[in-house]
Amino acid sequence: MSEYRGYKGSSLEFLKNNQISVGSSVKIQADIDYSGIIMPRYEHSDDKHIILKLKSGYNVGLAVAKIEKIEREQIKEEKFEEKRHPEKIEGLPKICLLSTGGTIASKVDYRTGAVTPVLTAQELNASVPELTKIANIDAEVLFSEYSENLMPEHWLKIANKINEYSTSDYAGIIVAHGTDTMHYTSSFLSFALAGFPIPIVLVGSQRSSDRASSDAALNLIGATKFITECNTKGIYIVMHQDENDDAIACHVGTRVRKNHTSKRGAFQTIGENPAFIITEDRIQKNFSQDFFKVKEFQPKINLDTKVILIKYYPGFDSAFLDNIIETGCKGIIFEGTGLGHVGKTLYKSIKQAHEKGIFLGMTSQCIDGRVRMTVYESGRDLLELGITPLENMIPEVALVKAMWAVGNSADIKEVEKVMLENVASELSD
Amino acid sequence: MSEYRGYKGSSLEFLKNNQISVGSSVKIQADIDYSGIIMPRYEHSDDKHIILKLKSGYNVGLAVAKIEKIEREQIKEEKFEEKRHPEKIEGLPKICLLSTGGTIASKVDYRTGAVTPVLTAQELNASVPELTKIANIDAEVLFSEYSENLMPEHWLKIANKINEYSTSDYAGIIVAHGTDTMHYTSSFLSFALAGFPIPIVLVGSQRSSDRASSDAALNLIGATKFITECNTKGIYIVMHQDENDDAIACHVGTRVRKNHTSKRGAFQTIGENPAFIITEDRIQKNFSQDFFKVKEFQPKINLDTKVILIKYYPGFDSAFLDNIIETGCKGIIFEGTGLGHVGKTLYKSIKQAHEKGIFLGMTSQCIDGRVRMTVYESGRDLLELGITPLENMIPEVALVKAMWAVGNSADIKEVEKVMLENVASELSD
Repeated sequence: MSEYRGYKGSSLEFLKNNQISVGSSVKIQADIDYSGIIMPRYEHSDDKHIILKLKSGYNVGLAVAKIEKIEREQIKEEKFEEKRHPEKIEGLPKICLLSTGGTIASKVDYRTGAVTPVLTAQELNASVPELTKIANIDAEVLFSEYSENLMPEHWLKIANKINEYSTSDYAGIIVAHGTDTMHYTSSFLSFALAGFPIPIVLVGSQRSSDRASSDAALNLIGATKFITECNTKGIYIVMHQDENDDAIACHVGTRVRKNHTSKRGAFQTIGENPAFIITEDRIQKNFSQDFFKVKEFQPKINLDTKVILIKYYPGFDSAFLDNIIETGCKGIIFEGTGLGHVGKTLYKSIKQAHEKGIFLGMTSQCIDGRVRMTVYESGRDLLELGITPLENMIPEVALVKAMWAVGNSADIKEVEKVMLENVASELSD
Repeated sequence: MSEYRGYKGSSLEFLKNNQISVGSSVKIQADIDYSGIIMPRYEHSDDKHIILKLKSGYNVGLAVAKIEKIEREQIKEEKFEEKRHPEKIEGLPKICLLSTGGTIASKVDYRTGAVTPVLTAQELNASVPELTKIANIDAEVLFSEYSENLMPEHWLKIANKINEYSTSDYAGIIVAHGTDTMHYTSSFLSFALAGFPIPIVLVGSQRSSDRASSDAALNLIGATKFITECNTKGIYIVMHQDENDDAIACHVGTRVRKNHTSKRGAFQTIGENPAFIITEDRIQKNFSQDFFKVKEFQPKINLDTKVILIKYYPGFDSAFLDNIIETGCKGIIFEGTGLGHVGKTLYKSIKQAHEKGIFLGMTSQCIDGRVRMTVYESGRDLLELGITPLENMIPEVALVKAMWAVGNSADIKEVEKVMLENVASELSD
């Protein structure tokens, strides 16, 4: 990495003049005094500010024009013993840890000043020593992206990588992942790897490890304990249950949403308790069904992104729907109101979409509860126009499932059938 | 209303041949025996079925081809005394009740077989006699629509009608409304009628009055009690707090969402307790602020529907955003991920939108919690591209507010300013 990564113009000049680079610990005098580590910047950044990570873990941007003095701080930098291998204890279960990025993998930022996650087994060992007592972990970095930048192409790469381990001696796979879109990824893995023989657990953190309130280590320990003790299959998301450190929740990967922007207990199973609750001394099981409804593992690692999620609202312009239909889209998931409705103003466009052979699925923006399109005339009208009511499937999950379904079949009847089949617990009673 | 409303082709012929019309009580022999009332049909219905409202309150569609026998049931039809006026008790507060339709106003369906609500004061008196002891209610039917068919034009009509009563002797206004989009309407009224001198309460029901579990009467009683006892201003939504009949919740009209498709306690204040809890013997107050942040009542009953709500997801095609920008849209509300992010793949389009003077606001699809766009590089990039972070405004509320803001000003700087001003408690701590 460049020692001035992302800096340009006056901010780059400022750093060079002061012999300060990304990762340097510095003291700054400006409007008030700051001390922290110089962070890298990104492509779209301006050239007038530097970014400083404070000891609190927060980043601040400081205008270089207002900095009176900057000096390198003489602190004893904590060095990793790069070559130290985690001790492996004979007889412990083996786990494969794949890192895709996200806050959980950005722990290293604070010490090095870099945002690229370097979540190696060594560093895990150093940061969460409890893990070595539970399992022997092999770690691998797949990508280093915050999850808002993970795309369906990344889902395919993750699924294909995991698929390589379908006949391995791992007890399970952990995927370290940003929390923003973790539930989209868990949904894709649930469909693409239906029947996978060992548990797959996605784990993230809401607060990075350099903050006192970080949930990273406990979530990782929870995921590891779950894999070694649960004796089950399926794709799960493991995160704090609430603001306390007492309990880690394990959610069915197709029934979960990020429902809060910042709380550690942001992830919630919709309409039910989490599948498992992991506490220090036990794992409470609330979910007694088989996660997969298919009997055999038959990976179908395909998708087609020509599927749209439309959230309906009063005043929604049917011209947008018409435009979407024109572009050659293959599926539309509506996030309707209430029991699964949209206004009559969209009927004509919906009829055209159906006639073009586009899959049309209905979910509800209420998020919780079941669509029931036979109760009111609006629902019955929409059924007659060719919309498939998707029971209580969460809108985001329906979107991912439709991408997967149209990626595996060009036959609209087959897509309609698959969308209503309970593949991976995406539908519940 | 036509006595065969909505029927056509073979189903119309079937009804005529049997001298049965909409509203008739009938017994039918088909695969099993049914008894109920013939319901009207709608424009988009097919011509092969008739709709029957069963005594349970549910509607079923029956294929006329499979009906072996249909006969009119000789039941003593309950007749309303159309001309009976509700008794008015001297000295009770006066309330204005405006009906827009929805399940709460479709109580009459069951008795007449029609879906057009005829919520007159007389019928209210007949159906909820408790009301006459609390207030003298004048009722008026504005529209008869389920709320999925209410559009921004309807919001304007409701606001203008209410505005006529700004100097009346009413203690408050009740708006009977379908639940699907009730929170969109309450948001518009909150902005358009900011400072309105008497409370405005939207009330609906999740189960129609012909069902044992109906919440219609209790919600209406709750709304009436709230207006007569609360001594406050503001726009509120009054609905069951949960599945019990013990408590009715009164929600701030800009902080509430329909979060379940069918439960009676579907409406929830986001991130907090409801503003007021109405029980049989008292009203518990949880909300101690002024609802309106403006001092004086200055109605601004305008809007512009050229505002779009975009829910971001992995794989979102930037071409749709480009198309939206091309159409002359004036505002875009993003429902981003987590703290307020979208993928880098949209940056170029967002930059163009900003350069075209389109208002760009960020909310979170997490629904609960605050967007904070300074924490991660993605957020900082988006800030630099010109996106306004909308604090903890609920996405649907932000959409309505943006329609209102661009309807009142063509100046983007003014729109940006207004969007961050707390007008009607849409932002909370």
